[in-house]
Amino acid sequence: MAAEVAQQPDVLAGLVRARSDIAEAAARIARRRPRFALLAARGSSDHAAIYAKYLIEVLLGLPAGLVSPSTTTLYHAEQDLTDVLLVSISQSGGSYDLLEVTQAARSRGALTVAVTNTPSSPLTEAAELSVDVRAGTERAVAATKTYSATLLALYLLVDAVRGGKAEEVAGIGELASRTLTESAEEVERAVERYRFADRILTTARGYSYATALEGSLKLAETSYLSTRAYSGADLLHGPVAAVDSETAVLGITSIGRGGTAMFDVLDTVSQRGADVLCVGSAARSVPSAALTVTVPETAEEVAPILEVLPVQRLALGLALARGLDPDAPRGLRKVTKTR
Amino acid sequence: MAAEVAQQPDVLAGLVRARSDIAEAAARIARRRPRFALLAARGSSDHAAIYAKYLIEVLLGLPAGLVSPSTTTLYHAEQDLTDVLLVSISQSGGSYDLLEVTQAARSRGALTVAVTNTPSSPLTEAAELSVDVRAGTERAVAATKTYSATLLALYLLVDAVRGGKAEEVAGIGELASRTLTESAEEVERAVERYRFADRILTTARGYSYATALEGSLKLAETSYLSTRAYSGADLLHGPVAAVDSETAVLGITSIGRGGTAMFDVLDTVSQRGADVLCVGSAARSVPSAALTVTVPETAEEVAPILEVLPVQRLALGLALARGLDPDAPRGLRKVTKTR
Repeated sequence: MAAEVAQQPDVLAGLVRARSDIAEAAARIARRRPRFALLAARGSSDHAAIYAKYLIEVLLGLPAGLVSPSTTTLYHAEQDLTDVLLVSISQSGGSYDLLEVTQAARSRGALTVAVTNTPSSPLTEAAELSVDVRAGTERAVAATKTYSATLLALYLLVDAVRGGKAEEVAGIGELASRTLTESAEEVERAVERYRFADRILTTARGYSYATALEGSLKLAETSYLSTRAYSGADLLHGPVAAVDSETAVLGITSIGRGGTAMFDVLDTVSQRGADVLCVGSAARSVPSAALTVTVPETAEEVAPILEVLPVQRLALGLALARGLDPDAPRGLRKVTKTR
Repeated sequence: MAAEVAQQPDVLAGLVRARSDIAEAAARIARRRPRFALLAARGSSDHAAIYAKYLIEVLLGLPAGLVSPSTTTLYHAEQDLTDVLLVSISQSGGSYDLLEVTQAARSRGALTVAVTNTPSSPLTEAAELSVDVRAGTERAVAATKTYSATLLALYLLVDAVRGGKAEEVAGIGELASRTLTESAEEVERAVERYRFADRILTTARGYSYATALEGSLKLAETSYLSTRAYSGADLLHGPVAAVDSETAVLGITSIGRGGTAMFDVLDTVSQRGADVLCVGSAARSVPSAALTVTVPETAEEVAPILEVLPVQRLALGLALARGLDPDAPRGLRKVTKTR
């Protein structure tokens, strides 16, 4: 896991260089002029799907939704998917349910795109178009480089559909490298602080909500922590009642509208006694932060690609500090075969 | 909260009697022939939205997605919503962000429907059509009768759009009454068993996934438990690593495809040492259940209206057993004004 985390600057830089492949798929999507987007994924890829949902809604102006696979796999819904773009996201490309969803959607009129790290996978074959995430083989059960590379692949795809030239991610490899180097000490301090924490909430708004979700999953699967992610807005509904001085709150706060909207939320949980750790390019601007991990500034819509790096290191560091083996989480396999 | 839980049989029966109002809104939706559906909600209503998403996808054959309000409120996305049906769900009808989402969607071409318990609310005025949930004033912060009534209202709406005659919910008031009476003893036993539990996962698949989400929120907001809901399929990805003998797993298992698909999932968590409580009409058929709460059988798509009743009672009972005041959860207000 540590090695794969460290590979991310190279993986991201390589993917930007190979973006012409993605631009080709994007051109075919643009020609079909979809009117609605659906995203299908499980696990970490589901968080990448949420990121893509924001990109599609904001940058392409299309309504978008996440697929509930059981609608197809359990209930065999007969949906009319004309004018729908279905993006299926899976690092392995081997999940049965995503395969079934993709095949069904294609037969019902959707334009289907598979975004995977396994170009020869059944999912790639089932979809009309495909995007190769180019992260290289990932051996740790906890997805790290496939996650950040999937985010970048989705950004490159959406950016190309709108006719963009990937300017916001031109230096993303270098920025990822800086992120890992510059955050190392702050992450180490956070590991020390949360060595004995039982309950960690992660929270964010907008694009960075994906990072909160992914951070929560990394912490749960490597350190068996009781974690949960909330959108900053939802947190102020019921869940805030469970926040107290035994709660650590990991707030993702990058420069931009989503991060700024978190300041009040983090202030509220801090007033309830929670210990607030902020990660992101705006971390040091949050008055209620007890601890910060700073990330280089980027356009808000690409910040999730960098924010997740120190969070992966935090999950890894906590697992090691607790005497656990992050490469072999109990009870998990790399490909989960749910139907 | 206890009084409002007990009112549900009457509320549900009354709503079925008043269904001609809903049928009128449904007829207008059917005439407009929407091609995509979006659902906007926060908190408990968000779980009702997830229920509605399954109904719309399976019973109407339309692709559907949940709105991320920040797409509108933070990023001002300029989406083309022609042919889109937007269903905004809010018991109070007073959330600023849903109001803004509804107004923006209407101005961008969507057919908008407000489903609220407050017919005079700003949300009702902002939407073109409205559905009155008719649950009466709800005073407890934890939504109970407004939740089940919202589910029923959404079912009646979707059923009427497809030309149904509400046959599957004809006796729902009576069934709700039976549910509360017949489950009382089993719920009491579950309260005793989980009196000292720290960590409760809730899980389900298909229509009942909404019940798992709502159950988790009720437990968090009344008993401050560390809870989290997972779709049964997602649980077998990363999160299962955090399941051990200190975890209680509340599985929603009603007769039908979603419930049946849970048997293996619950077997897996049980093998990891988790204590499994099954709630639903199929509860007694789950081999790995340590405890069961049975609910009368219905069509699978209406089961969530009943399943939630004993779960509300469980949350209430646990709060009281732990010396907490379920009517005044710390840090919560009835209407949350997020933007």
